[in-house]
Amino acid sequence: GTMTAALLEQYRERIRTELDRVVDFWLKYSHDKEQSGFFNCLGKDGKVYDELKYVWLQGRQVWMYSRLYRTMERFHRPEILDAAKSGAAFLQKFARVQASSGPGKCAFCLTRDGRAVKVQRTIFSECFYVMAMDELSRITQDKEMQVKLLVKLVDSIYFMVRCQMFCPCSPQADAESMMDRLIFWVQTDSSDLGRPQLPGDPPINSMAVPMMLLCLVDQLTEGRTDVAEKYKDLSGWCVEQILQHIQRDGKAILENVTLNGKELPGCQGRLQNPGHALEAGWFLLQYALKKEDAQLQKTAVDKFMEIPFHTGWDKQHGGLFYFLDVDGHCPTQLEWNMKLWWPHCEALIAYLMAYSHSREPLLLDRFKQIYDYTFSHFSDEEHGEWFGYLSRKGEVVLDFKGGSFKGFFHVPRCLYMCEKLLDGLLERQDS
Amino acid sequence: GTMTAALLEQYRERIRTELDRVVDFWLKYSHDKEQSGFFNCLGKDGKVYDELKYVWLQGRQVWMYSRLYRTMERFHRPEILDAAKSGAAFLQKFARVQASSGPGKCAFCLTRDGRAVKVQRTIFSECFYVMAMDELSRITQDKEMQVKLLVKLVDSIYFMVRCQMFCPCSPQADAESMMDRLIFWVQTDSSDLGRPQLPGDPPINSMAVPMMLLCLVDQLTEGRTDVAEKYKDLSGWCVEQILQHIQRDGKAILENVTLNGKELPGCQGRLQNPGHALEAGWFLLQYALKKEDAQLQKTAVDKFMEIPFHTGWDKQHGGLFYFLDVDGHCPTQLEWNMKLWWPHCEALIAYLMAYSHSREPLLLDRFKQIYDYTFSHFSDEEHGEWFGYLSRKGEVVLDFKGGSFKGFFHVPRCLYMCEKLLDGLLERQDS
Repeated sequence: GTMTAALLEQYRERIRTELDRVVDFWLKYSHDKEQSGFFNCLGKDGKVYDELKYVWLQGRQVWMYSRLYRTMERFHRPEILDAAKSGAAFLQKFARVQASSGPGKCAFCLTRDGRAVKVQRTIFSECFYVMAMDELSRITQDKEMQVKLLVKLVDSIYFMVRCQMFCPCSPQADAESMMDRLIFWVQTDSSDLGRPQLPGDPPINSMAVPMMLLCLVDQLTEGRTDVAEKYKDLSGWCVEQILQHIQRDGKAILENVTLNGKELPGCQGRLQNPGHALEAGWFLLQYALKKEDAQLQKTAVDKFMEIPFHTGWDKQHGGLFYFLDVDGHCPTQLEWNMKLWWPHCEALIAYLMAYSHSREPLLLDRFKQIYDYTFSHFSDEEHGEWFGYLSRKGEVVLDFKGGSFKGFFHVPRCLYMCEKLLDGLLERQDS
Repeated sequence: GTMTAALLEQYRERIRTELDRVVDFWLKYSHDKEQSGFFNCLGKDGKVYDELKYVWLQGRQVWMYSRLYRTMERFHRPEILDAAKSGAAFLQKFARVQASSGPGKCAFCLTRDGRAVKVQRTIFSECFYVMAMDELSRITQDKEMQVKLLVKLVDSIYFMVRCQMFCPCSPQADAESMMDRLIFWVQTDSSDLGRPQLPGDPPINSMAVPMMLLCLVDQLTEGRTDVAEKYKDLSGWCVEQILQHIQRDGKAILENVTLNGKELPGCQGRLQNPGHALEAGWFLLQYALKKEDAQLQKTAVDKFMEIPFHTGWDKQHGGLFYFLDVDGHCPTQLEWNMKLWWPHCEALIAYLMAYSHSREPLLLDRFKQIYDYTFSHFSDEEHGEWFGYLSRKGEVVLDFKGGSFKGFFHVPRCLYMCEKLLDGLLERQDS
């Protein structure tokens, strides 16, 4: 009733203010005005402490700016559009490695001026590249872009000659061709990634891969029925692969399983990552809502939210653990008991989405519990943005705002999603 | 005088007891009696929590057993010799990867039955392989071994045919041929390691490499003048490379520098690893004592012990930090403020060696300070062996005794070295 509405309004107010502050922080400190692209390594006060540019984070920042520009009135501003375009241009120019590591492979990390520093033997740089290009394509496929495409065509021919390969340069075409390569790597042959198949390391089902692809399909198909048709089977496959991670008679979500959904031996097989499971939870719920699949909606909440919340929440000091072992062994990751910002972001989205759909008060209580911990521990009132890494007891242990894995992504995506969900909730409340 | 002698005697007593307990722990829990080699992943009570076998740790355990067997009366026991031989046989049979990653490359991690799980694109698996084989060769080149070598010869021919390469199978020859390949990788061409040269990642001088090679030269040349002659230039080169890490007008030891000894930009260039610098300190001191180089002895103590001790010691909670940034930025390693067992092991060796040589009371005070923290925080009175990973405040955060990087090495090597140093000190005291 009214009390709930007042509470939701209070959340929305705080979340809206927080999102504004976070966007301001990155607009102010992260833009490399000389060499384009974004600085990722920002100290607690925004100062750059390292000039390296991480491809995951460049792609994510382009995606987030483009999404905010496209879908939120107050962020539909030229400086945000320009930043997104500049970041995308930097990626298109420098992210791909023309090395022995196979066609289309993107670097993980670049120097300030775009030279490759490191290449990961995984698919994630490419995934965030796809997200960036697709979201940008949704705001730039206008008249201005048509003109630019003619210019690009010339570049493109030059590039094809130079690289002896076809490089489509419109963001949407670029996203789709990279996506096709990703699917080939995941479903057909991963040898281009440069990791030799070793006899003691058979391929496994790591939850990150189907999650990431499901997220990409959602991205690429929004409002495009032809693309949705193309990737219909893929999204079904992703869901099936994610569901294989429900183990132990439905009582645990395990991060890694065999290709046919059985438990793996050792630490790898027993690993739990509660924040990751919660993220999978809202990916699944979103998909299930779109498909009107009630059974999958229930699975998303019961298995991918309630289980990781219960096992992952630290009853003693609050917050979500980073890693756990399903049999109670000590995890081998040195940071296992730290409280990281992103699992809390994902948990907030998950429970607010679940509540928003079912209006089940218990789910709002969960959101409240996570919200209280998150906003009192991670948000930095002094300089803006959030801290990323707390000790088990909640003290800030690493005080930077941006680093090799923390960019303009989990915090603003969480605030953006929550604001949208609260808008929806309060609108329905009004009517 | 007498008080110092009593204190030293007290240390020796405790260290001797501790070494016995540590050896017992690994003898009891780590041997894989069915498939040979050693289990590395042992819980706090010694129970195996993962069956993976890590090549660094297999090699180090062979080395440590062989060294104890050869140089300490009370460990000259058949079960220790057998364990060393069995571990070496496992390594010779399984460590090398016959894959695309180049000749001689060893795996980083194996399944229980010896199938490669992971290959690192570095030289360290090979380094510990060399250490293991060389130390073992010093105890097995006896009559029994001569006979075995005849048998091996047959195997060897079969192996050469199968692998289309020459594989010397006596441990000493094996150590030397692997060493030659290591030197080739480090000084001539590292492309066999499988890491493509990237334009933004030029080769650097990472302190671990010359340290490791200096340690290997010390290992290979003990009592062998012909081998010493062969590697004379190499050890000089290693020392020179290590000294390049003295930076900031002699006020800091930096972990990574350019190939011509200049500071690198960013986090990589500002990184300090106090425990590693202290380890380099005793490597250098040991070398300088052998060479009777007084200047280098002073550098080893003043630069590679006193600097990392002062910058690395946590004045608030005691113990050595794992990583620091020379400009006081927050390190980006999530575990930067944790207290790990091995830096404390290396610090104990460093200061006791320095004191043992100079008899400077200040150096014994440092030893005492590190000793008190170490023995009261890491040693496990209940189950034996040491914990490896404490929070900044000194609580045990990961409670296993063995893991992917913690084996039968730093703790027993520290106790072994300290016992030997104390024997020397007390002997001279007596006379």
